[in-house]
Amino acid sequence: MFVRNCWYVAAWDEEVPAEGLLARTLLGEPVLLYRDTRGGVVALEDRCAHRSAPLHLGRKEGDAVRCMYHGLKFDATGACVDIPGQSSIPPKVSVRSYPVVERDRLVWIWMGDPAGADASQIVDFFWHDSPEWRMKPGYLHYQANYKLIVDNLLDFTHLAWVHPTTLGTQSAAGLKPQIERDDSGAGTLTIRRWYLDDDMPNLHKRVARFEGKVDRWQIYQWSPPALLRMDAGSAPAGTGAPEGHRVPEALQFRHTSIQTPETETTSHYWFCQARNFALDDEAITQKIFDDVLVAFEEDRRMIEGQQKVLSLVPERPMIPIAADAGLNQARWLIDRLARSEVA
Amino acid sequence: MFVRNCWYVAAWDEEVPAEGLLARTLLGEPVLLYRDTRGGVVALEDRCAHRSAPLHLGRKEGDAVRCMYHGLKFDATGACVDIPGQSSIPPKVSVRSYPVVERDRLVWIWMGDPAGADASQIVDFFWHDSPEWRMKPGYLHYQANYKLIVDNLLDFTHLAWVHPTTLGTQSAAGLKPQIERDDSGAGTLTIRRWYLDDDMPNLHKRVARFEGKVDRWQIYQWSPPALLRMDAGSAPAGTGAPEGHRVPEALQFRHTSIQTPETETTSHYWFCQARNFALDDEAITQKIFDDVLVAFEEDRRMIEGQQKVLSLVPERPMIPIAADAGLNQARWLIDRLARSEVA
Amino acid sequence: MFVRNCWYVAAWDEEVPAEGLLARTLLGEPVLLYRDTRGGVVALEDRCAHRSAPLHLGRKEGDAVRCMYHGLKFDATGACVDIPGQSSIPPKVSVRSYPVVERDRLVWIWMGDPAGADASQIVDFFWHDSPEWRMKPGYLHYQANYKLIVDNLLDFTHLAWVHPTTLGTQSAAGLKPQIERDDSGAGTLTIRRWYLDDDMPNLHKRVARFEGKVDRWQIYQWSPPALLRMDAGSAPAGTGAPEGHRVPEALQFRHTSIQTPETETTSHYWFCQARNFALDDEAITQKIFDDVLVAFEEDRRMIEGQQKVLSLVPERPMIPIAADAGLNQARWLIDRLARSEVA
Repeated sequence: MFVRNCWYVAAWDEEVPAEGLLARTLLGEPVLLYRDTRGGVVALEDRCAHRSAPLHLGRKEGDAVRCMYHGLKFDATGACVDIPGQSSIPPKVSVRSYPVVERDRLVWIWMGDPAGADASQIVDFFWHDSPEWRMKPGYLHYQANYKLIVDNLLDFTHLAWVHPTTLGTQSAAGLKPQIERDDSGAGTLTIRRWYLDDDMPNLHKRVARFEGKVDRWQIYQWSPPALLRMDAGSAPAGTGAPEGHRVPEALQFRHTSIQTPETETTSHYWFCQARNFALDDEAITQKIFDDVLVAFEEDRRMIEGQQKVLSLVPERPMIPIAADAGLNQARWLIDRLARSEVA
Repeated sequence: MFVRNCWYVAAWDEEVPAEGLLARTLLGEPVLLYRDTRGGVVALEDRCAHRSAPLHLGRKEGDAVRCMYHGLKFDATGACVDIPGQSSIPPKVSVRSYPVVERDRLVWIWMGDPAGADASQIVDFFWHDSPEWRMKPGYLHYQANYKLIVDNLLDFTHLAWVHPTTLGTQSAAGLKPQIERDDSGAGTLTIRRWYLDDDMPNLHKRVARFEGKVDRWQIYQWSPPALLRMDAGSAPAGTGAPEGHRVPEALQFRHTSIQTPETETTSHYWFCQARNFALDDEAITQKIFDDVLVAFEEDRRMIEGQQKVLSLVPERPMIPIAADAGLNQARWLIDRLARSEVA
Repeated sequence: MFVRNCWYVAAWDEEVPAEGLLARTLLGEPVLLYRDTRGGVVALEDRCAHRSAPLHLGRKEGDAVRCMYHGLKFDATGACVDIPGQSSIPPKVSVRSYPVVERDRLVWIWMGDPAGADASQIVDFFWHDSPEWRMKPGYLHYQANYKLIVDNLLDFTHLAWVHPTTLGTQSAAGLKPQIERDDSGAGTLTIRRWYLDDDMPNLHKRVARFEGKVDRWQIYQWSPPALLRMDAGSAPAGTGAPEGHRVPEALQFRHTSIQTPETETTSHYWFCQARNFALDDEAITQKIFDDVLVAFEEDRRMIEGQQKVLSLVPERPMIPIAADAGLNQARWLIDRLARSEVA
């Protein structure tokens, strides 16, 4: 059972080709993604209404797609517009069409009741295509339920253990995160961590445009079902960063981690790490990408191991600890969404 | 659930070796095939009555087979005739024996109530071993339910879409097939297509023994559960082919497509394309075989894709279109057989 | 459903490394094995109490193991002794700990009610580490339920059929084994076979320290759930071997075959063949090991084939024959144990 009435990511924009057809299983459903003649993304059920042939083995014809089994043609709304050898087309011959919005280099899809698909609710990831930011899109396929990845992202304790040489520090593990929950709409969690008048981290030193002590921050914003944004950086100490003033030489990063369930035990995972400096230095772009990927592979090994244990002994209970505060709040928001769909 | 009381194909004759043992799963049951000392084919349950060891890991002894786990020996009727270390053999120690008929180079098996196994009901495929015909036996293994293959064979619409450069023509897609159903016995469907005073197809031109316009025909005969025979060819126009008179120089083909369920989602598929000309030209034999195989792989890609979608979202309904006439009639005959077994 | 209240083998001693962590699924449960600082073996549930992360991806710290997901640390009793970022540890935060005994180079584990774990019940395999014996430990992984392996070991009929060129002889197949059942405790089966004033077998001739006729024996002792010991050898004829007197030049072998269920359809299998002569001749050690392995692969091919048939048609009954006497007794003892746990 998946939450349906929310915006999920279906792909990076560049994953949907200008000409071809992309097949992707989302929430256990086969979905076809392609671009119409104006370049807009279309998302249809990847299953011909006639006899369940996969439409991704078909052919794009203008804004429509034709099933290459018996030639039924479906327009971008999913309506059948041609049945070879048959002059009239019964209205029920159609495939499901999903509301899609392409924004911030992401293809967003609404898998629930189309009446609820309000594009204004889509979370903002402006750093994906802003000229002031630079990032390289990443994708991982996971052999685990997406909630296990959400758990991981909202928990700081694991940084010291899973990522001792990459992301983590022993001190980070001890910090109790302060979590603010905003229950409006689908809800949002915000976690702020500030290190004032601190030493500059080694990673920042390599690319810094200033010297001396810094005010450092990590601000996480998470929204269900599985959208994480992080704002992190270093500014010269005392220049007002905690009050919201970021001087131009401040080093800023924006991180994206987004999951969409593929099945109950597999997930799609899109990520990137944007920065506001050295924009045209492709070596830095690649280095940041590689560093994130190394850390994410550390997570994946653990989370896929966790999924294997859960599949082997599903009935054993989990026991909460204090460090679960973040992930418990996230699970609560996901469950609230799920309950609202059952009611 | 499979229709049981009918003749299925178990193998080409050449697949059952003179000396060895062939294991094949048919209708979800493990079946052992071998030849007795006179060369006749024996079909037994491939499962020792004692403790379920596979008999195909055993040894042929005359007309019998001995399980090489504990040495129980079963004769060609499935009766146990030796239990090492035991002088008396309880009558219940036996394995199931299936009625088998070897005819037209095919091994036919009856998996239902043996009392109903009437060899006279076996459909005729005389072109497999007639000296006036030549063919090369083919076999495909399918990751799909056999009914999806039946659907494909009885539908002409797909020719234009799945086989645009091999079997299909755009004109063929538009033709409404005229289907005659004969409900006697298990039933038969016949579909006739005639093209009178037509140009000779390119395929025929290459091997033709005459020139000029032709009367061309394609006559399909299908019988449940999954037996397709096709009679196709070209005769000089006006020489009486439509009335049943085929002059000696007429180019004639006979096509065979037979499926037997292996499991609910996998199938065996035997096929061949026989001709009545250039019998000893092995290059033509191979060329025809290869051409058929290319077209059949086009079908397989689509049908196995269809099975994947059906397995992922089994509950979504199929919607009929006019072009389904042939396959709907076939499904109706299969369902009639199935219902007759439940009643 | 597995018998739980008995000692199972979890590993050869050398499989549990001095420093690392060994993960093994036993009776469908993930188990972690490692050595404490004194070298003793610890067996814990391989599943962190917190959120089911596998402990084998963790780190050994002294006698304890730390989960490398969130840093929870469990001592050798399974009690949690550290939760990073949390000062108090609720008593329920613990993982299951299994009683373990390391004896005769085997690691024994008790997966049932710990109150019943009486080490004095562990069956004796003294030849594994006695200075008067020499063996090489073997391990096989089986795609079959462990009871099918037990069946095989307690049945002499199969020797002639499965192992005609290795272990078996036609005469051995005909012998009716005399089985003594001792029902005390978990029960024991004993099967004795004596060949008095017989020729020395070829295998023995190669290494014999005497010539002439021999008194030969094979004495099997089996205990549930799946422990087989065999005492076999040749002594000069008339020197009192049947009465229990074994002269020093007698060739003696001790064989070990032990199974532990991994899942319902897979098993662990530990074996060895010890001897009391030519102790330091490593070529003989290897030759004996290789010979046993060849024969065991013959069994595995048949037994895994049997499991495949049973999985395909599970509902078909087995039919007993006279040769089943041994395995029927073994199954009876296993079932008696299983019933005692349900009651």
